[in-house]
Amino acid sequence: MRFFEDIVVGARREIGSFTFTAEGIKRFAAQFDPQRFHLDEEEGRRSLFGGLAASGWHVGSVCMKLLVAEGRRVAGEAAARGEEVVAWGPSPGFRELRWIRPVLAGDTISFASEVESLRPSSSRPEWGIVEARHTGTNQRGELVFSLLATAFVPRRNGN
Amino acid sequence: MRFFEDIVVGARREIGSFTFTAEGIKRFAAQFDPQRFHLDEEEGRRSLFGGLAASGWHVGSVCMKLLVAEGRRVAGEAAARGEEVVAWGPSPGFRELRWIRPVLAGDTISFASEVESLRPSSSRPEWGIVEARHTGTNQRGELVFSLLATAFVPRRNGN
Repeated sequence: MRFFEDIVVGARREIGSFTFTAEGIKRFAAQFDPQRFHLDEEEGRRSLFGGLAASGWHVGSVCMKLLVAEGRRVAGEAAARGEEVVAWGPSPGFRELRWIRPVLAGDTISFASEVESLRPSSSRPEWGIVEARHTGTNQRGELVFSLLATAFVPRRNGN
Repeated sequence: MRFFEDIVVGARREIGSFTFTAEGIKRFAAQFDPQRFHLDEEEGRRSLFGGLAASGWHVGSVCMKLLVAEGRRVAGEAAARGEEVVAWGPSPGFRELRWIRPVLAGDTISFASEVESLRPSSSRPEWGIVEARHTGTNQRGELVFSLLATAFVPRRNGN
């Protein structure tokens, strides 16, 4: 991962894509969101979603999974170039999560992340605060998911 | 579930509680958030969390699980009283998710929900929009999780 000073507003990264299978949708739903339209094809078709739909928490968790994998990849590449790799702080939360369109069985969602704002932390001068919008887009190019995430990132000359 | 007209600002419901085990924390993390402090006790102790910590997405997903179970319980009781049970619409998303304190292995989190605002939908007169704050509190009474959720709820005389 990079230092706060290396990050620029507007920078966009493709994070990876994921295909939601009927089996995966049902498995997540059975554990965490057992509503009928997440568990059964016929119930999904009869619902407003129009098909077996992934739980919104499943979509968010998959986005997290891809973010972690991408962070690891970026850190590995930086280490291979001999650059210093720094650990980001834990996320305090996020704002504006939107489930814009259903994610149905068979849909492939491509996730991306774009830096929206940068500011120093007033309480902790060794950290900067990065806001990034993570989005998911389906195979028809339709936006299905959006989330404004906040992260604490170490400053290069922070300590 | 109830109609929009039956809901009042300030109404609070206890949703249920859940104990996060080390095994459950690791199982969720391996699938969706494989960061080292979610996967290994020793790495967790060395992290800012101070112990094996649940993924924030795990905490949110458990809140969803308890909300679904509670909704089913409330609907069952209403049906038993002979009241009309209505289906709420899908959630368009939420705002202000906060992971306030770590949820560590062994912690028991009690979730509750309080209605914050009510307004008619301007675009769809048959629906009302309810905003409710879902919170999670640990066994020491400390707030660990907070989320401002939005739901579409049918109006009694909406159609």
